[in-house]
Amino acid sequence: MGMSGCDSNCTIRFTLPERSIMAFKCDIPAVPTVQQDDDAVRITRWDFEPGAVTGWHQHGWPYFVVLLTDATLKAHDGKNETATQLKAGQSYSRPAGVEHDVMNGSPHPIAFVEIEVKRPDALVQLARQ
Amino acid sequence: MGMSGCDSNCTIRFTLPERSIMAFKCDIPAVPTVQQDDDAVRITRWDFEPGAVTGWHQHGWPYFVVLLTDATLKAHDGKNETATQLKAGQSYSRPAGVEHDVMNGSPHPIAFVEIEVKRPDALVQLARQ
Repeated sequence: MGMSGCDSNCTIRFTLPERSIMAFKCDIPAVPTVQQDDDAVRITRWDFEPGAVTGWHQHGWPYFVVLLTDATLKAHDGKNETATQLKAGQSYSRPAGVEHDVMNGSPHPIAFVEIEVKRPDALVQLARQ
Repeated sequence: MGMSGCDSNCTIRFTLPERSIMAFKCDIPAVPTVQQDDDAVRITRWDFEPGAVTGWHQHGWPYFVVLLTDATLKAHDGKNETATQLKAGQSYSRPAGVEHDVMNGSPHPIAFVEIEVKRPDALVQLARQ
């Protein structure tokens, strides 16, 4: 997902005029810590206090998420809200294009690592080495 | 890395005749739990008891690793042994082609999630969606 305040061409994070309708009503920000950022990938650890949100954002790249803690992850796609129970060590992958707001619906802090593949073609090169 | 006993064309895990020379002398196997396995990626959680090893293997695909626990990861490349201190939540990425044996050098169990990108071109497709 985009960094807080990010206006990258690839991953867009913004506040919609209709934000109070389209996403979670919360201003506690999730905290990103970038672990790796190069031409091919960006790897970010995200820490959420209870109730913290990423803010509405669009994923410009395919990405993987690995949970570091148990978590109830709430997601808002602009119309519907979902809540997913996840265990530490669980993972999931998503294509580019996802738009949503994500909230920590747990009564405790949570964290996950997000791996965004900016240039899959660069991985193709790596695979051919 | 390859599954225990895997003889895939892409990720090869095998016991060398010279294994006692080339890699760690240990037969406690790390335990793989596959979380996702499709045309594009394989995601595997690996659990290691103290002293457990993956066995000698070659990575046929580029891969990411996310530590779920603090760990001292020992690696043997056939000639040299290294030990790396890692914290829960740390990550790293590697290209295809790496060959090594990996051991839990910690006095406690460790775990990590490994994401192997089998078909980066499939991620390219996803990125274009």
